[in-house]
Amino acid sequence: MEVIKYPSKADWPSLVKRPALDVTTLFDTVRTVLNEVRSEGDTAVKRYEEKFDKVTLSGLQVSEEEIKEARELVSEDLKQAIRTAKANIEKFHASQRFTGQKVETTSGVTCWQKAVAIEKVGLYIPGGTAPLFSTVLMLAVPAHIAGCKEIVLCTPPNREGKVHPAILFAAETAGVSKIFKAGGIQAIAAMAYGTESVPKVYKIFGPGNQYVTAAKQLVSLKDVAIDMPAGPSEVEVIADGTANPDFIAADFLSQAEHGADSQAMLVTSAESIVSPVVDAIQQQLSELSRKDITAKALEHSRIIVLKDEQEVIAFTNMYAPEHLIIQTENCAHIAEQIENAGSVFMGPYTPESAGDYASGTNHTLPTNGYAKAYSGVNLDSFIKKITFQEITAEGIKNLGGTIQTMAGNEQLDAHRNAVTIRLKTI
Amino acid sequence: MEVIKYPSKADWPSLVKRPALDVTTLFDTVRTVLNEVRSEGDTAVKRYEEKFDKVTLSGLQVSEEEIKEARELVSEDLKQAIRTAKANIEKFHASQRFTGQKVETTSGVTCWQKAVAIEKVGLYIPGGTAPLFSTVLMLAVPAHIAGCKEIVLCTPPNREGKVHPAILFAAETAGVSKIFKAGGIQAIAAMAYGTESVPKVYKIFGPGNQYVTAAKQLVSLKDVAIDMPAGPSEVEVIADGTANPDFIAADFLSQAEHGADSQAMLVTSAESIVSPVVDAIQQQLSELSRKDITAKALEHSRIIVLKDEQEVIAFTNMYAPEHLIIQTENCAHIAEQIENAGSVFMGPYTPESAGDYASGTNHTLPTNGYAKAYSGVNLDSFIKKITFQEITAEGIKNLGGTIQTMAGNEQLDAHRNAVTIRLKTI
Repeated sequence: MEVIKYPSKADWPSLVKRPALDVTTLFDTVRTVLNEVRSEGDTAVKRYEEKFDKVTLSGLQVSEEEIKEARELVSEDLKQAIRTAKANIEKFHASQRFTGQKVETTSGVTCWQKAVAIEKVGLYIPGGTAPLFSTVLMLAVPAHIAGCKEIVLCTPPNREGKVHPAILFAAETAGVSKIFKAGGIQAIAAMAYGTESVPKVYKIFGPGNQYVTAAKQLVSLKDVAIDMPAGPSEVEVIADGTANPDFIAADFLSQAEHGADSQAMLVTSAESIVSPVVDAIQQQLSELSRKDITAKALEHSRIIVLKDEQEVIAFTNMYAPEHLIIQTENCAHIAEQIENAGSVFMGPYTPESAGDYASGTNHTLPTNGYAKAYSGVNLDSFIKKITFQEITAEGIKNLGGTIQTMAGNEQLDAHRNAVTIRLKTI
Repeated sequence: MEVIKYPSKADWPSLVKRPALDVTTLFDTVRTVLNEVRSEGDTAVKRYEEKFDKVTLSGLQVSEEEIKEARELVSEDLKQAIRTAKANIEKFHASQRFTGQKVETTSGVTCWQKAVAIEKVGLYIPGGTAPLFSTVLMLAVPAHIAGCKEIVLCTPPNREGKVHPAILFAAETAGVSKIFKAGGIQAIAAMAYGTESVPKVYKIFGPGNQYVTAAKQLVSLKDVAIDMPAGPSEVEVIADGTANPDFIAADFLSQAEHGADSQAMLVTSAESIVSPVVDAIQQQLSELSRKDITAKALEHSRIIVLKDEQEVIAFTNMYAPEHLIIQTENCAHIAEQIENAGSVFMGPYTPESAGDYASGTNHTLPTNGYAKAYSGVNLDSFIKKITFQEITAEGIKNLGGTIQTMAGNEQLDAHRNAVTIRLKTI
């Protein structure tokens, strides 16, 4: 962990750099798997499950039986937590429902938008040491509220060919239609192209390692939409002298434990808190189960001391953090001025883990500076807005001349004629 | 133009195919230009302007002088039409402004979204025979309403190094900040990476040929967001026996004149209108100035007769047209059931050209079936929604247990600890 005091603005661009991998270097490898799944379907998915996940699968779809079994295996405690989180995520995302209004732009010319759910969506849930059932909720709950008719979920099974019961329970609770045992590139390919058992979807969501990210990017070039480009997770904490160093340290470490490529930043104009925070990090780190990964992530994490609040805000908007925690006395005043961030956590009692799990906001967020142009996943991610217009005879009389003049000047005669021919009949 | 009567459903997938080119085959060529602009900046842009647009430029930015000159050159008639169109586009897009609401998901846990404009956006306007000033309005007006601080526009100059006055007038009217003389791949590269004179932007919008599309796709993999993948333009007309064959023919041809790769489809269950429409198309075609291009586009255009309204709707949702014109007695009833389309035009007096120019809706729309997952450009395209949350001591007491249970089950100790450490202090 590097402590950088009062860097010059010329150094800021290097300080906001992430340890992100350029996934385009993986495209050749990824393309091979994509093409095989496209041409061979389930057979290729199973072959790659054998190769990468070391499991021989007879069928890909998780059965009713397995889902029922999972219900028995999840503790009542966890079930209740999943239900509470689901209720909050549902409440917040339902509040995002779009209600369009009809607008008469010219007398007789009425235009409006209608939100329509994307019919088929695919959710990818990575495997690994821990079952990411929280991500199941973050993707499936808004998909369900949006009204997506087919919600497909792919996740790699363990070596016994089983999916973690908590993932199955969360999927069932959130309204997933079909669950498949498939991971990595082969799962993305299956959802992008469809196979005998996995339906082709129109948009793919969810996190994953660099191979999954590369696969999502490649299929997004022509076959299917994706949620957003993904990179390693990151947090920035803005703190002043009133902040509790233990809280800051805990937030820092909860980001760092995500993976060796995670990044945590503390940005402050209160130099006095640096050393208490460093001490608290060292002390808390020693007690963590994932301390090796966490320590690696700390290597490219930074504490940056700037000269005043204005610099702190400007630096933050340049960094455009995925998660931003503001632990200052005037957090609302600072939050007002944030223009680039995925999700903002205000005040001492608002840890990032609240949003990661259960407060109701989504945890699928733009990383690597993409917050400058992208929103995190929200209800809009599962719908598209179709525009409608209806023009009366009166309306085309009012607006026809304008259209004819513009079409004529763009040398598009037939465009003009579509108006002229109508005006002649009125 | 092919007339297909009562095809079996098994043939539908081939009937909804577009004559779209696979732009990924152009990636190698495109990458070379992108890389040169990235490393050499303005010098490379000028070199490619010389090579592709046959023009030697001293500077890239359009001067105040040139903008003033353009104001004199545009006819009063066209100016007025541009102002009317701008007012309608502004009115409709302003109605799309987002107002979030604060939601208390659990007592003491408050979440909300805030819409913030993307700070810097780049608009690409293609060159060619006709000046596409309408596209300038469609992109710059919503960017301006959204509050984008820097709105950069690139468009290729003519051989005299000039930009068409109507483009400059529309850009000035719509609130573009800076206009540059640059086209094709080099323009996309300049906006994606920034050069000495062209600012780097965070999102690039606008149509273009297959090289521009390929360039946008490549830069979107890691450097910048883009509006959507683009393909050739297309229209579908749904008509019943009450529709005016001349109107249908005019709409067909106004789509076909866009380019040789455009596609027009008439989908109907009223077989009786087929022959009057075919006659009207032949007759109107002979009078068009762009009849060669238009005739080429008609070669892959289709008239499809289906057995009833339900089939017409199902086929339309499978085709997912960029533009959909519904000329039937019960057009509202059909519009209700449309799930996949970019923009829908209802009733006899609502030609596509109204939306192309002046009714207020956007004409930058998803082609090639992308309407299944993408919206057309709208106010949302120029903003991102940041989520905020604030949790009180009471709130973390209420929700803390849920977060701890979930984090524990995902084996993320530090996530759990960020809550535990706070609960201890309350």
